[in-house]
Amino acid sequence: MTGDRNSSVCVLGTGLIGGSLLRAATAAGYRAWGYNRSAPGAQAARADGFDVESDIAAVLSRAAADDALIVLAVPMPAIDTVLADVKTFAPDCTLTDVVSVKEPVRVEVHRQELGAYYVGGHPMAGTAESGWAASSPDLFRDAAWAVGVDPGTRAEPWNRVARLALDCGAIVVPVLADEHDRAVARISHLPHVLAEALAVAGAAGGDLALGLAAGSFRDGTRVAATAPDLVRAICEPNAAALTEAIDDALRLLAAARDSLRDEGTLGELIDAGYSERDRYDTLRRWDITDIRPGDHDWLERLRDAGRQGGVIRSLD
Amino acid sequence: MTGDRNSSVCVLGTGLIGGSLLRAATAAGYRAWGYNRSAPGAQAARADGFDVESDIAAVLSRAAADDALIVLAVPMPAIDTVLADVKTFAPDCTLTDVVSVKEPVRVEVHRQELGAYYVGGHPMAGTAESGWAASSPDLFRDAAWAVGVDPGTRAEPWNRVARLALDCGAIVVPVLADEHDRAVARISHLPHVLAEALAVAGAAGGDLALGLAAGSFRDGTRVAATAPDLVRAICEPNAAALTEAIDDALRLLAAARDSLRDEGTLGELIDAGYSERDRYDTLRRWDITDIRPGDHDWLERLRDAGRQGGVIRSLD
Repeated sequence: MTGDRNSSVCVLGTGLIGGSLLRAATAAGYRAWGYNRSAPGAQAARADGFDVESDIAAVLSRAAADDALIVLAVPMPAIDTVLADVKTFAPDCTLTDVVSVKEPVRVEVHRQELGAYYVGGHPMAGTAESGWAASSPDLFRDAAWAVGVDPGTRAEPWNRVARLALDCGAIVVPVLADEHDRAVARISHLPHVLAEALAVAGAAGGDLALGLAAGSFRDGTRVAATAPDLVRAICEPNAAALTEAIDDALRLLAAARDSLRDEGTLGELIDAGYSERDRYDTLRRWDITDIRPGDHDWLERLRDAGRQGGVIRSLD
Repeated sequence: MTGDRNSSVCVLGTGLIGGSLLRAATAAGYRAWGYNRSAPGAQAARADGFDVESDIAAVLSRAAADDALIVLAVPMPAIDTVLADVKTFAPDCTLTDVVSVKEPVRVEVHRQELGAYYVGGHPMAGTAESGWAASSPDLFRDAAWAVGVDPGTRAEPWNRVARLALDCGAIVVPVLADEHDRAVARISHLPHVLAEALAVAGAAGGDLALGLAAGSFRDGTRVAATAPDLVRAICEPNAAALTEAIDDALRLLAAARDSLRDEGTLGELIDAGYSERDRYDTLRRWDITDIRPGDHDWLERLRDAGRQGGVIRSLD
């Protein structure tokens, strides 16, 4: 963490992501504190030495007094309620979030007239576990962290949010909210849906099949162990983009099924899948070094760079 | 390994599975040697201190002279050719295989009149890597190893094959060939097909999507990194059962897509997937201890026990 300015962070929600952020920001030298809606949840974090309360008014009033960066780390269904509290107690604070969709959060933030200092965020990290107990200060180490570059975003809050992501060990990917949502539908939400389908179709083979299951089934169903309510909260707010991604998967699978049934071969799918997995394995991220937030056209230039695989690893 | 009887093993094919078996059997005290069709492939194994040649006549003649257990460890498309060599040079040896489908191998073995001492096998282990270089003596440690109990199977070769599996560190699952094939279609071949589809549908989001991809995409596409020819050789001989498994997945995914598009919810799939993954995680294998190969109805009793999750961890 660089310097002392803007060095406080208020995390609303201390589950896996919010809790890990509280730990990581603290480790990076921020003054960081948090809110958990349940008293036992807050108590669990306090028992580990973190400053977490279940009194949202107190937590947010402190944020307002200390000019803290507020991080919304609650699931999408709770965002409107928490934003109403922010509006009441800390309407002038810089605001970001770590929710798995960006456009619905952005819309709600603007509906509640909190858009002036808002910059959307989404760290691409997680485990099948959830809750404070699963949180870790290293969760974001080398992870991509999407940071919004939607029109109207201001440079100062953007820098502050990007710096927090970097200080947590992540790599910043600049992205528009709706492009983010279409992308994560394919690489985060679709994997969840396919994992659930594989778990069901596999278990239909009974204990014999499950007893023979090895690495391909274990890995392919890993995220199906995520709590169902959390999966719904992650995927369902992105319904339009996820519907399109599932449609794509259905077309690919139906073509393979038809080819296998009629000609005994899985057709083009196998070579295509191998080739695209290789593309993923060999993806070269390049560093964005020549765009300074606040410069002319900086948002458009960051957006274009992000589309082409550009990332930010440090800020001056 | 128990005692000294039946202690030689001849492995035909020294790729990932055959190579690992050669290493594991050697480590367990067997006299073990092998065949690789390519001279450089055989040389690579010899360089690591293993007795591997590319002269099939010599390798099999030695098996006949030493009453070795012959293990077919070539992909399904090469099975007929290799069986013809076995028929020529070592027709009276006990015979097993490690191919990913069992019924097509069983049919071919009987067509070539080699069924008298044949017992099908399939160790449920692997990596996305292939070839001798990826082989490991520990690949089968705690893995399930399917061993055939089809009608007509004789007790002596069955014991010998099961003992090899146990000596390699695996757990024996007794199973009929066609029931095995329907089971692995769901927990091994379907995961491959879904991984390929996810790789393609994910990469359709471009470098931005691939750059944001994290654990769910990485794990969900892991087996798409397997060499395409190997995936085809594993999956396509099981066309009928795999077609049925893909059909199941298509139905589940289409229902989720419809529900998401029309009602904004993924419907029953998420709870069902979570529940079935939990069933897999908590599956209790129980030990078969009261069925002795050769006893009255031993094949039927082992078959029934295997269907109900029973496994063999040791032989007297």
